[in-house]
Amino acid sequence: MYYQPILNIAEICAQKGVEDAILSPGSRCAPLIIVFARHPDIESKSVTDERTAAFIALGIAQHKQKPTVCACTSGTAALNYGPAIAEAFYQNIPLIVLTADRSPEWLDQQDGQTIHQTNLYGSHVKASYDIPVSISHPDAVWHVERTISEAINLAMTVPYGPVHLNVPFREPFYPEPNEQLEFDTSIKVIDQMESHCVLNESQWDELIATANKVNNIVIVAGQERKDHRLIEALHTLKQKNAITVIGDIITNLHPLEHLIRQPDLILMPTADSFKKTLQPNLLITFGQSTVSKNLKLYLREYKATHHWHIQLAGPVADTYQSLRQLLRISPAYFFKEFSQRLNGHQLNLDYNESWLKLEEEVKTKFDSFWASKQNFTDLEAIKRIMDCLPDNSFLHLGNSTAVRYANFVGLNNPTIEVFSNRGTSGIDGSTSTAVGHSLSTTKLNILIVGDVAFFYDRNALWHQHLPQNLRIVVMNNHGGGIFKLIKGPNQLPEVNEFFVTKQPLCAKLTAQEFKLDYLSCHSTEELQQHLARFFVDDGTAKILEIFTVLDTNTDIFHQLKQHISNRYEK
Amino acid sequence: MYYQPILNIAEICAQKGVEDAILSPGSRCAPLIIVFARHPDIESKSVTDERTAAFIALGIAQHKQKPTVCACTSGTAALNYGPAIAEAFYQNIPLIVLTADRSPEWLDQQDGQTIHQTNLYGSHVKASYDIPVSISHPDAVWHVERTISEAINLAMTVPYGPVHLNVPFREPFYPEPNEQLEFDTSIKVIDQMESHCVLNESQWDELIATANKVNNIVIVAGQERKDHRLIEALHTLKQKNAITVIGDIITNLHPLEHLIRQPDLILMPTADSFKKTLQPNLLITFGQSTVSKNLKLYLREYKATHHWHIQLAGPVADTYQSLRQLLRISPAYFFKEFSQRLNGHQLNLDYNESWLKLEEEVKTKFDSFWASKQNFTDLEAIKRIMDCLPDNSFLHLGNSTAVRYANFVGLNNPTIEVFSNRGTSGIDGSTSTAVGHSLSTTKLNILIVGDVAFFYDRNALWHQHLPQNLRIVVMNNHGGGIFKLIKGPNQLPEVNEFFVTKQPLCAKLTAQEFKLDYLSCHSTEELQQHLARFFVDDGTAKILEIFTVLDTNTDIFHQLKQHISNRYEK
Repeated sequence: MYYQPILNIAEICAQKGVEDAILSPGSRCAPLIIVFARHPDIESKSVTDERTAAFIALGIAQHKQKPTVCACTSGTAALNYGPAIAEAFYQNIPLIVLTADRSPEWLDQQDGQTIHQTNLYGSHVKASYDIPVSISHPDAVWHVERTISEAINLAMTVPYGPVHLNVPFREPFYPEPNEQLEFDTSIKVIDQMESHCVLNESQWDELIATANKVNNIVIVAGQERKDHRLIEALHTLKQKNAITVIGDIITNLHPLEHLIRQPDLILMPTADSFKKTLQPNLLITFGQSTVSKNLKLYLREYKATHHWHIQLAGPVADTYQSLRQLLRISPAYFFKEFSQRLNGHQLNLDYNESWLKLEEEVKTKFDSFWASKQNFTDLEAIKRIMDCLPDNSFLHLGNSTAVRYANFVGLNNPTIEVFSNRGTSGIDGSTSTAVGHSLSTTKLNILIVGDVAFFYDRNALWHQHLPQNLRIVVMNNHGGGIFKLIKGPNQLPEVNEFFVTKQPLCAKLTAQEFKLDYLSCHSTEELQQHLARFFVDDGTAKILEIFTVLDTNTDIFHQLKQHISNRYEK
Repeated sequence: MYYQPILNIAEICAQKGVEDAILSPGSRCAPLIIVFARHPDIESKSVTDERTAAFIALGIAQHKQKPTVCACTSGTAALNYGPAIAEAFYQNIPLIVLTADRSPEWLDQQDGQTIHQTNLYGSHVKASYDIPVSISHPDAVWHVERTISEAINLAMTVPYGPVHLNVPFREPFYPEPNEQLEFDTSIKVIDQMESHCVLNESQWDELIATANKVNNIVIVAGQERKDHRLIEALHTLKQKNAITVIGDIITNLHPLEHLIRQPDLILMPTADSFKKTLQPNLLITFGQSTVSKNLKLYLREYKATHHWHIQLAGPVADTYQSLRQLLRISPAYFFKEFSQRLNGHQLNLDYNESWLKLEEEVKTKFDSFWASKQNFTDLEAIKRIMDCLPDNSFLHLGNSTAVRYANFVGLNNPTIEVFSNRGTSGIDGSTSTAVGHSLSTTKLNILIVGDVAFFYDRNALWHQHLPQNLRIVVMNNHGGGIFKLIKGPNQLPEVNEFFVTKQPLCAKLTAQEFKLDYLSCHSTEELQQHLARFFVDDGTAKILEIFTVLDTNTDIFHQLKQHISNRYEK
């Protein structure tokens, strides 16, 4: 009989909601591979590059909001999981990381693929568990099984996050060729019933008393999943009270009417007197990170008198350096209650009108800017793509230029959901993450990514599970365009060699290697011609490579900034 | 004036022997990039994928035996260094790892590329230093400067190894466009004078007394750099005393006459009675890991009565589970002294003769095996390549099949030096490491690597510094061949999908992308035709892709094992 407690790992995972496992090949991890591959309720896939594998698992876990397993062999394989685990930690994604290990007596004995795996991921997992290597004693079996339940319960406790299970094995690693493995469906699991967090009447009274004293209330969202309950609550609140809601591209609040979605354009550096008029008395925030740098700089300078942050649990960031009140409840609950209780309060309507007017102005300015432009640029391409995204698709934005440009453009189609690896803002797993999402749905997933990030993570496509609903837009300007945009590097002699780091690759051969359809364009006209074909759902994944010139992108972007900023000087 | 203490980091590195820096682009790390790129005595190169970058730096540090810098930006960039750092730790390579960081007040504030970087690499660095973020106080300046000296001294103390310097920066990151940076060549550095470790007369007497009591002495080397002093000492020892020396492919002892270089073939599973005759009384070991699994299993079963391990410093592995005496001196010193002092002792000459006869037998058997074979295989290809390696070149062996096959073949050309990432035996950085070596010399560097490892580490070629003296042999059997060779997975239904993980890529398009010459072959004849052209030093890096069939490789390998083992049954 093959080790029953190891079989039970997969069974407990399945009963605790794991639907998918991304497995990387290895000998030490053979027991894990076999039990996951054979479990009838878990869909297992093999991905060789562990850096990619963990980001694919992250994409699946994020899309499904389910605990998702990635498992690899011992040694540096496990270190290649590092980047995705840090991203999962900061984006609160329930990744269940299983690393096979040698038994402890072989540590530092110069045997292959043996490193110090206990606590390998340091502060970037919610917990790290050592599974016992000797599992003959009944207490040890209880330890193994209990730990799997514990780990998944922790991963699925708000804030969700990655957990690490280090699983040492002694030989034999393989069952007999004809051995039948039987999963024990009656295995004991520990379920977890979550409570509901609410405020009591006196707490609400206190909040409402504060809100009633102020006129200018601004709600600023951070990165969030698309949440219809939350959008509904905010919609009701806004209908009753003219409260300004600011939500950039990654907040997924774009279905909300009168949302301020282009704060980065509105708040471009300009006269203090103008900015002063927009200063809030009460700032209410929720969600994770914010892309809009101008918004962050603005709210740190023009601090609100009162700042409440709504976050059910977990470490809290004082993003705007004005936080005074932390509310340990869910945003949807808060806004629903707040809306009902605030009833009747007279806000300064002009204040909200100012924001809306500004939003309208920059939008008009932004849209009109393109009419007169001759040169094809990244920003224009992203705008045109975002203007015709198919309904109900998922938009993935790579770091670092893609997400910033998309944020300038803003999203109008309410049926889209946006994802971006903004937990740590790395360029190392954008494509792999989009692959993970694509594997979790039949709907289209469109990734917009720069050439540097795309080739960095090329192994995202190196496996047998390429999803046909994946569409990759590679913005190829042959280098890290961000370094031409930001102030500082662009006037240094090192800019091209050490910052932009020009790179010659095109995605055409990559498409050929991995059998994706390939389209390319160098102009607005070509782009417009290709878009319909690119988005058609014909059963084949596609790459659309957009070639632009780095210096033109930079020039036009600066012209755009000038064009938008001019407005304030009228 | 740009921060002088940051400039001094590069100056101190240069004065402490750093000749090379591999820099990855980023904004937070701009100060590091600029000071290294501008330092007149340090050769800086930009490599975008940090996983690759760190392995390239490892290759340079290993080749030159000099402290070598790799520097990257904050966030997951730093985590991508993880695999190379673990390899450097277990192979004792002096990698100086500099990671830019946010200033500590921004930790967990949802700002981009901010993770917990203090002690990021856990037990896999010799030390982790936090550079102070505020460097206006003179004590802080002293702290920064002293720490760089300390870190390099530690990296260069036996056993060499990686150190981590985490360097937080606040804005501004960039100097003024026309600002001239002046390195302070009079900066204080702390030099380190190493002592010489010797044994005293009574200690030597004790060792010689033990040696004089035994007849069968075996010396087994582990992985080592090619060391002429050591080879000379072993040569003298062997001339005076018929002592058996076993050294597999990664020991670099192949210039030694009468070396037992094919222990894995000699010690293939066979009758106990035969093995018993080879059991040593005194086993003397030195060096790092051993590829030969049969040798390890043999010496663990047929333990020596006395086992001395020679290692100057650092943690010691009890590889053969028989270690009783640790000698804290250098192997070259030990063998020179041992040779002089052992003078006159009568060893069992027949014992050494048995080993030599066996070596001769397996060599003849191994060589004759290929004459009758019709099918082209990986092992034959590797044999033919190793038979005609150009003099004075460097041979790099990828994990996992390449190094094992090469070990079966053995190396005859005494002018070659062999490298392989056997510290952790990962497949993740073989090509990058070979690139690092190639950048450190004008001589040819030949890498033999499997298709899985090659495509895993494809970004090794994605930069502007492709060395023309690099030759890559890709053994392409479209999957992880090792899983067909080892017992266990090859009879499971999961073998192809989850272990071999078949992959369709060929290296041709990769060669095209990165402008390497490309040759391919499917037969012995084609291989023989191509070899001369492949090895010609004509200023262009080359890939030679060898196509074989996985199942044929497996069959022929099992036939070979049978052919060699048969011998014992005569």
